[in-house]
Amino acid sequence: MGKQLIVQKFGGSSVANVERIQCVARRVAGYRKKGHDLVVVVSALGDTTDELIELADKINPEPSEREMDMLLSTGEQISVALLAMAIHKLGFEAISFTGAQVGIITDTSHTRARIIKINADKIKEALKQGKIVIVAGFQGVTLNQDITTLGRGGSDLTAVALAKELKADACEIYTDVKGIYTTDPRIEPKARKIEALTYDEMLEMASLGAQVMQARSIEVAKKFDVPIHVRSSFENATGTLIIKEVKNMEDVVVSAITLNKGESKITVCDVPDRPGVAARIFNELASCGVSVDMIVQNVSHLRSTDISFTVSKAAAPKTLKITKKVSQGIGAGEVLEDNAIARVSIVGVGMKSHPGVAAKMFEVLADKKINIEMISTSEISISCIIQKKFAETALKSLHEKFGLGK
Amino acid sequence: MGKQLIVQKFGGSSVANVERIQCVARRVAGYRKKGHDLVVVVSALGDTTDELIELADKINPEPSEREMDMLLSTGEQISVALLAMAIHKLGFEAISFTGAQVGIITDTSHTRARIIKINADKIKEALKQGKIVIVAGFQGVTLNQDITTLGRGGSDLTAVALAKELKADACEIYTDVKGIYTTDPRIEPKARKIEALTYDEMLEMASLGAQVMQARSIEVAKKFDVPIHVRSSFENATGTLIIKEVKNMEDVVVSAITLNKGESKITVCDVPDRPGVAARIFNELASCGVSVDMIVQNVSHLRSTDISFTVSKAAAPKTLKITKKVSQGIGAGEVLEDNAIARVSIVGVGMKSHPGVAAKMFEVLADKKINIEMISTSEISISCIIQKKFAETALKSLHEKFGLGK
Repeated sequence: MGKQLIVQKFGGSSVANVERIQCVARRVAGYRKKGHDLVVVVSALGDTTDELIELADKINPEPSEREMDMLLSTGEQISVALLAMAIHKLGFEAISFTGAQVGIITDTSHTRARIIKINADKIKEALKQGKIVIVAGFQGVTLNQDITTLGRGGSDLTAVALAKELKADACEIYTDVKGIYTTDPRIEPKARKIEALTYDEMLEMASLGAQVMQARSIEVAKKFDVPIHVRSSFENATGTLIIKEVKNMEDVVVSAITLNKGESKITVCDVPDRPGVAARIFNELASCGVSVDMIVQNVSHLRSTDISFTVSKAAAPKTLKITKKVSQGIGAGEVLEDNAIARVSIVGVGMKSHPGVAAKMFEVLADKKINIEMISTSEISISCIIQKKFAETALKSLHEKFGLGK
Repeated sequence: MGKQLIVQKFGGSSVANVERIQCVARRVAGYRKKGHDLVVVVSALGDTTDELIELADKINPEPSEREMDMLLSTGEQISVALLAMAIHKLGFEAISFTGAQVGIITDTSHTRARIIKINADKIKEALKQGKIVIVAGFQGVTLNQDITTLGRGGSDLTAVALAKELKADACEIYTDVKGIYTTDPRIEPKARKIEALTYDEMLEMASLGAQVMQARSIEVAKKFDVPIHVRSSFENATGTLIIKEVKNMEDVVVSAITLNKGESKITVCDVPDRPGVAARIFNELASCGVSVDMIVQNVSHLRSTDISFTVSKAAAPKTLKITKKVSQGIGAGEVLEDNAIARVSIVGVGMKSHPGVAAKMFEVLADKKINIEMISTSEISISCIIQKKFAETALKSLHEKFGLGK
């Protein structure tokens, strides 16, 4: 393997304290010794971001988003400076940059800015000088020089975007797990590390609650075909590759099982069966910034029907309030919340070409006497809403029946 | 009093916690209500800078100065964002800027950079929009976009330089004392707050150990004739004005008494009395970065003499080591350190035109049977090195005899 340009991203837990920063420095130096060019993207130390948010909240519970970005971007700036110092200590040349300094130009949507372009000249020059380049993740700058942040998990996006811009040979996302698993190993000890996943599968998993990588960064990786390697920052083993197409993917029907217990089900009873009623509910929620997930409406032979949908638990109180108001306006009935639900999903590119996957999933749940309350499908995933108390049983049974165990 | 443009600087202790930040916000808002334009310069919260230095030290005891600036500049960035949020909470418009964002361009001397120029367009534009402008003190940026810091106390310099650039009507330095005192009120309860001081007197006092303002910022204020108002951030009373010329200054011979117990006296014994010997000692110290303060060499009728000088206690071990080496090289004798000394000084522009001030000082000390070990004079100050145990007695006697008491 010749000289490569590798973008490596280390999250907050990988740089949570002095020892871990030194550990990252040693790993980075190890790659440099092999002759590779390195661009290292770092998040804020451990809980720094949360601490800063808490501090801001004490001063102003509704802070200006511009000032919030000004505040939060300091977290990554601290990390990059400290990592540079740690690498210098090992006798290697390194230089740190903020997002603004390396020209990560974004739009003006503070706290969730989108990258418009990257002027990577500074990075290229530093690499040419033989330096390890360390870039503050999560942040950019507007054309007007205002500091922006890219939203939670934005450091992944910084890494992917830099890998694309620099035409890097690899983009490695270091994390505190060994890679992506067939399911949550804390629930199912038989969960297996997946060798390779497609962008679509990873995207599906991210939207279904797997928190390893930010969905937007996977979208960008997919768009520009940037291969990603999710791996552990504590060991050297290969992790999970996220790529365009996985060899032998025809053989694997289902790649992973995900579980999300963070949602509530809202049901509007006795909704009059006339056009535009559903639209009114969901328009109102959308205009109030509530993101609705699954929606189920039963076709009814009566003149009224029930509409159920799920939202994150955090959004549930706000959603109830809005929905009750709309319900009165349209002459519907009661609005109920059920927060004792769970969503269990199966994900796999293979299911596109394998009929009967949904049927098999329903059968597995039926065998365990688990009632399915809602169903939602995409091209490469099937989700069922069930009672929360059955969540672990459902997950383990599906994991076994789809042959994902060790 | 019509609409004014006021630059206000708040130090780290004024923004040490949430309550104090809110207190600063209220004060700033109060001035805004009166219709004034405000540019507020803020230091890092309380001990943030020291904590960051400590963190860096754990990672690399000899950190790159560029990376150190990258790290330390985050402290002020946090302060400005939080202060902006606090002002917003009170219903006023405010916007925060880093040194880089407001174009405080410096040279490349990291950790002690000098301001080359300021492009104040952004500030002027924000003021025109009716916003309170909040600027991170202590920091700037090189033409190459590297972040720099201006050295300890650099926020004073930021404030003075901005006041000059913006042609401000006033430059207020807020601190945790009520102003500049005739002497340290912790030692002499009769110490009086001084109404007005000249730049030269303040410079002299800063170099003699009064820690209210950074000497460089006073130099800049003097150079560009920026009037400074040092005052308390906890009350509304007028503090001390630092200006070019003080009315009635002829009447006041001595304005203040300062005391510095932070120095050690180094004596090189039996120095051969030939040209160039003293130069060799002090060149060697200068090239090792040791800053020497007072120097006394007795004219001698013998073929050798003693040379004594003072350095800060922190620099004493290094100084001893270097001086001992040089001493051997030039054939001098022992090198002794005395750290039980104190420097007591009288400061006043009036002494230029009043003969006999020095004589009076020596007389006061002699009356108290205090031996003077070294004497140093400038145009507007006289300093004596005495034994530390006499320091308080000397200060109180001089304070009384020169009529500075209440």
